[in-house]
Amino acid sequence: MKVVLYMAITANSMIAKEDDDTSFVSDAEWDSFTKVLKQAGNYVMGRRTYEESVNADVFPYDCLNVVMTKQKIKNKWGDRVIFTDKSPREVLNLLKEKGFATAFIGGGGELNASFMRDGLIDEIFIDVEPWVYGKGIPLFAPTDFEVRLELLDTKKLSDQTIQLHYRVKK
Amino acid sequence: MKVVLYMAITANSMIAKEDDDTSFVSDAEWDSFTKVLKQAGNYVMGRRTYEESVNADVFPYDCLNVVMTKQKIKNKWGDRVIFTDKSPREVLNLLKEKGFATAFIGGGGELNASFMRDGLIDEIFIDVEPWVYGKGIPLFAPTDFEVRLELLDTKKLSDQTIQLHYRVKK
Repeated sequence: MKVVLYMAITANSMIAKEDDDTSFVSDAEWDSFTKVLKQAGNYVMGRRTYEESVNADVFPYDCLNVVMTKQKIKNKWGDRVIFTDKSPREVLNLLKEKGFATAFIGGGGELNASFMRDGLIDEIFIDVEPWVYGKGIPLFAPTDFEVRLELLDTKKLSDQTIQLHYRVKK
Repeated sequence: MKVVLYMAITANSMIAKEDDDTSFVSDAEWDSFTKVLKQAGNYVMGRRTYEESVNADVFPYDCLNVVMTKQKIKNKWGDRVIFTDKSPREVLNLLKEKGFATAFIGGGGELNASFMRDGLIDEIFIDVEPWVYGKGIPLFAPTDFEVRLELLDTKKLSDQTIQLHYRVKK
């Protein structure tokens, strides 16, 4: 199973403002994001990303939604949503057992960093939007890791949004 | 006079490790950086960038070197180097008075942020290298600003290094 991290970022690698606002994300990026998500058939996210998605009225996504949290959250969404306190590795095993070919990891910064720190990410897609935020939530919460990538591809999602696609060297 | 910010970054927008190590920078990036620097004829940097440049034996650069610092540093380099405690705006006025068409701003994160916060940057070049650092020095030190950019151009500096060229919308 391939594990893919997919995120929209500002040009200085913020995934949101400090208050979780992601209004910098363009329609072209959103279209690409939801398309890749649907292909994967699953979306692994953290608790804050879940709450923001509910607030933005885009939850649950059109796939299996796995929300990683230590909190006890009542599942009012049915079979398409799993709340779990499992570790990153255990969550991937769960998806593997369910027969997914790709695991889709998509925020926030804490969750992204935990998968990277444990060496679990195979590929990274970053969609760079034309903004810089002096403060915000970075792509990876500060964590001890240092990883070399291989640039596989670059693609314009629009005249203003560029996608960088990397393989993580292991 | 046009004010250009030019930096090499990791894919998550770090300009160095916490200990100022910039070994992620490729030869292709360095060639581009020094070429643009020479064309501008000047390089405005902070004290840590100055010290790292001295340590790396690349200081002074082949242009006018303006080192912004509150510290009193003895100038043993001669006319090509200016140590100054002036503000960002005053430094730009100084370069304008000297007849430069372009001011070249290039690190570190504190200095970059101070020019951005004051609305002084016209264009940004970021050369994205295939690395991610879980910890490090970000492109901009955390500062209150939020700026929209316009993507002017993208260019491969090598098969692994991509340059994004932005105009700052004002």
